[in-house]
Amino acid sequence: MGNIVAVDIGGTHLRTALFSPNKVEPLAIQRSSTHVQGEVVFERLCSAIALVWGKDPVVAISVASAGPLDPEAGMILSAPNIPGWENFPLANQLSSHFKVPVFLGNDANLAALGEWRYGAGQGHDNILYLTISTGIGGGIINKGQLLLGHRGLAAELGHVTVLPDGPICSCGQKGHLEAISSGPSIARYVSEKIAEGTSSILSNKTTISARDIANAARNGDNLSQEAFARAGEYLGFALADFLHIFNPSIVILGGGVSQSGELLIKPARAALEDRVMNSNYTKDLCITQANLGDDAGLIGALVQAQLNL
Amino acid sequence: MGNIVAVDIGGTHLRTALFSPNKVEPLAIQRSSTHVQGEVVFERLCSAIALVWGKDPVVAISVASAGPLDPEAGMILSAPNIPGWENFPLANQLSSHFKVPVFLGNDANLAALGEWRYGAGQGHDNILYLTISTGIGGGIINKGQLLLGHRGLAAELGHVTVLPDGPICSCGQKGHLEAISSGPSIARYVSEKIAEGTSSILSNKTTISARDIANAARNGDNLSQEAFARAGEYLGFALADFLHIFNPSIVILGGGVSQSGELLIKPARAALEDRVMNSNYTKDLCITQANLGDDAGLIGALVQAQLNL
Repeated sequence: MGNIVAVDIGGTHLRTALFSPNKVEPLAIQRSSTHVQGEVVFERLCSAIALVWGKDPVVAISVASAGPLDPEAGMILSAPNIPGWENFPLANQLSSHFKVPVFLGNDANLAALGEWRYGAGQGHDNILYLTISTGIGGGIINKGQLLLGHRGLAAELGHVTVLPDGPICSCGQKGHLEAISSGPSIARYVSEKIAEGTSSILSNKTTISARDIANAARNGDNLSQEAFARAGEYLGFALADFLHIFNPSIVILGGGVSQSGELLIKPARAALEDRVMNSNYTKDLCITQANLGDDAGLIGALVQAQLNL
Repeated sequence: MGNIVAVDIGGTHLRTALFSPNKVEPLAIQRSSTHVQGEVVFERLCSAIALVWGKDPVVAISVASAGPLDPEAGMILSAPNIPGWENFPLANQLSSHFKVPVFLGNDANLAALGEWRYGAGQGHDNILYLTISTGIGGGIINKGQLLLGHRGLAAELGHVTVLPDGPICSCGQKGHLEAISSGPSIARYVSEKIAEGTSSILSNKTTISARDIANAARNGDNLSQEAFARAGEYLGFALADFLHIFNPSIVILGGGVSQSGELLIKPARAALEDRVMNSNYTKDLCITQANLGDDAGLIGALVQAQLNL
């Protein structure tokens, strides 16, 4: 079997990497901005793929992208940060251009595949993966198979209601997990409390990130600690539901916000223990951080190709 | 291939049926009460199986039972209405007794399999099945495969939180879907409102069932209509989350309460449309009633055997 080109298309950047068939260390890697119009992004994507292609035969291109997308049709349904890509047949376009099979998957789903084969989920076949950063995405592996659903739109685990009449979510609905426990939602909570007069060592900062809040919490800032306790608690409530729904043997937390570690995970675990309906769901459950970091999407795309070839 | 004995163990009764390999009409069927101690239930089960066994070879026994249970281990973890059955190795015991392979599955999961192969779900491979009766159970089929999870405890779809700080659920937690939209929960709501002074044509009835309330609603009783509107609305909220989680092509509603039809389904559909995050999830979605009725568990057990043999 020849080499595989993996692609990870994110909100602001795209990365391409060349992998030999069964190795997780890339032979080459490339990064570029996606802050250009849709058609130009496609050209830029082709250039970035060509740059890592190399001299040996490439047997497939495998793409991880932010959703919503249809993996079976190889179609980007809409790309929030790439205006031209509405119902864009990305797999077909790439396949015509490079004359190899192209596979497309949701980046959070593929990150779950990556963690399963090469990361924190090794040895588990029933995995609940959550990525918590700007948004909250999910990936479910059941008996070694990715949960995709009818049009590949399953596992949107940030978009479940944890607080009816809660804050507005990026999707327009109310009280979703993403609207409470994502990075921008934690930051919004802190900013609102400061505006209401709560004191904080972050009071004089003009823009506040979840990372700032994590640092402030570690330095004893009460408001920042409370903000993570709240985000973690609602995460735990959602996880209890997810245990009843999926009965995983491992929960893997990826994404930037999950790197705040116990600040988020401790209250989440407490809320989960409080809300789970019986101990059958938790007695051999592992809750852990992801370990592929920023490479999860690229490595997940590699695994997607391995499974399809 | 020889015949299959299917068993459905419910809260109050057990049923056994003999099936020829690929036919959904049973060759024989038998029903008995389970209102006896655990060991006696096992003897009664063996007798009921023997009664339908017939003269031709039987290749397997396949059992649908109320959970929680571990299908892989063939173990009943606890049976709320059969006190002796705690961590009871039902499959092994039956297999020793009858000298054939025995398969065990959660009754709601198997009902989903039954509806998929022989009922309302034919032609669909991504199915969300909910049974709404005394409790609320679920079954998920993803790309033709049952979602079981690590220990077979997945798809407990009645036990997701739809109203934090809502009514206490049968499982002890608060605000679960089952605590609002199951038959006894609808009846409790009406009884409480009557006790608070709301007028209703059911005011003078000493015990009220969900069926009474459905009849009263059809006869114009405001409180009964409101009770179904509320149960349906929360069902719709949960369904919106389930669409984001599973992206099914069909939602099948089984169980006694779902037979109230549009009384429940109309407000559910409206709430779902209101809460779904985009139309990709609903544009070719079918929402329908189950059509195997009380036989769903037995027929699901048949399908479980067909898939395992």
